[in-house]
Amino acid sequence: MKIAVIGGGPAGLTAAIYALRNNFEVTLFEKAGIGGQAAIAGEVENYPAFAKVSGFDLTCKMHEQAENLGLVTEYEEILSVAKDGDKFAVKTESESFVFDGVILAMGASARQLGIEEDYLGRGVSYCATCDGNFFKGRTVVVVGGGDTAVEDALYLSNVASKVYLVHRRDSFRATPLLTERIKRQNNVELVLNAVPAKIEGNGVVEKLIVDINGGKREIATDAVFVAVGQIPNSGCVKDFVKLDGDGYIIADENLQTSVKGVFVAGDVRQKALRQIVTATSDGAIAATNLVMSLLNK
Amino acid sequence: MKIAVIGGGPAGLTAAIYALRNNFEVTLFEKAGIGGQAAIAGEVENYPAFAKVSGFDLTCKMHEQAENLGLVTEYEEILSVAKDGDKFAVKTESESFVFDGVILAMGASARQLGIEEDYLGRGVSYCATCDGNFFKGRTVVVVGGGDTAVEDALYLSNVASKVYLVHRRDSFRATPLLTERIKRQNNVELVLNAVPAKIEGNGVVEKLIVDINGGKREIATDAVFVAVGQIPNSGCVKDFVKLDGDGYIIADENLQTSVKGVFVAGDVRQKALRQIVTATSDGAIAATNLVMSLLNK
Repeated sequence: MKIAVIGGGPAGLTAAIYALRNNFEVTLFEKAGIGGQAAIAGEVENYPAFAKVSGFDLTCKMHEQAENLGLVTEYEEILSVAKDGDKFAVKTESESFVFDGVILAMGASARQLGIEEDYLGRGVSYCATCDGNFFKGRTVVVVGGGDTAVEDALYLSNVASKVYLVHRRDSFRATPLLTERIKRQNNVELVLNAVPAKIEGNGVVEKLIVDINGGKREIATDAVFVAVGQIPNSGCVKDFVKLDGDGYIIADENLQTSVKGVFVAGDVRQKALRQIVTATSDGAIAATNLVMSLLNK
Repeated sequence: MKIAVIGGGPAGLTAAIYALRNNFEVTLFEKAGIGGQAAIAGEVENYPAFAKVSGFDLTCKMHEQAENLGLVTEYEEILSVAKDGDKFAVKTESESFVFDGVILAMGASARQLGIEEDYLGRGVSYCATCDGNFFKGRTVVVVGGGDTAVEDALYLSNVASKVYLVHRRDSFRATPLLTERIKRQNNVELVLNAVPAKIEGNGVVEKLIVDINGGKREIATDAVFVAVGQIPNSGCVKDFVKLDGDGYIIADENLQTSVKGVFVAGDVRQKALRQIVTATSDGAIAATNLVMSLLNK
């Protein structure tokens, strides 16, 4: 039987490995490069059994592992997924494929500030849990005003020596409990009504310049953690499976979506913690349950 | 702040890595050898980014990674965990420790037949999902009569050329749907009222001998998949946190147990799929939530 995996990050690659090892034929569709957000993460230090590895190398190894098990990779963007009787039609720009089951693993993209392009992997990060430890005892900035931003600042206050929390408004959207807590942290300075305007540095981040009260302020920092939201890559299935208000795909505990035979794994799914290890776990769970549901048919 | 991790398998090691990277002090207690069931699994082919690795090497790498981040490992069995005011007292035979938070990751042990000792890693397996692919196109036996055994047989029927399902009774405890399905598989032969008596082979499994109808039957096979149940290693906390009827620790979606500040990860937890990747994911989730709850205190 044939399974489509849509998305070539850790979730999709692990789903592929699991389905292939159970003798299913698997085609993986990837619109850009293998590895998803993990591949552009720079150094990864929290994937168990790799003390330090580039996200690119890590996900290349996963892809190679899946290809050695027989994975077919199609470098094409998926335009739509639809029911086709008992099966599923998966359409790209140039072709239409039919599969017995589908695993959605398109991931999510961090919303950007628009000023950080030159400093990606050079002090700009979209994941405090992943990269905070690289700035132990140093100064960092967190940009944002929601729960994630305030949690990131709290998290980093225990790692970095000094944390600036930069927010464009004068109050936080984050839950009051979190906001109260962050205000009590001695090493966290709130910089409110401030809009990030420019990052400067000699190859790596050295300062963030913000527009504040009609003027400018320079904040000397070693890192800028951007936490202004994520955008799930669920556009191609938005009329097919049920999404939550933010566009994340909703699943049951077996990771089946609102459509029977269609499963979801990784960052595109509604869930609390988005990490490489939680993505690989999702991939294994989604593939195992899809495989069992097809064998049980 | 100080965290205790109880159990040194993939779940506990990942929890340690995550907590250490957030600057918490972590002590890991392991009563036997590092790696838990994964370490005795033989070859592992389904851990993403390792095409093939021994379970021992894989978990050694995880341990080394945690130790390089500052992990303290105590090779001692935990006798009990209890509240101690705002903190937790963790007792071993020789000592009592106090921690701010605890992660339970003691794992589970496969129930054994009692005849397989000499063939562990040589054709005897306790995990069809993990090891089935090593027996592609060959003959395998599954022993057991519950959902897991029948699911394993179904799973293996898609990988192996021939599957014997050996069960000591004449009917299955497994759900009727599964039982019906397995009866329709052409390459699955049910061997009922049969009690495994002996495994024979020249270094690797070659046959399983069963007691049946007052006599003996020899089944030529390349593998014996034992699926007669698992025993969660939850004894030391059975009066402390809430367990389900089978002894697995019950947790909420943040992996917090019935006791605030005590989290659970890996095979000792009540959950559907027990794999190395689901254990590492649990470890990351449990540690992240414990860390956030302590920082929020």
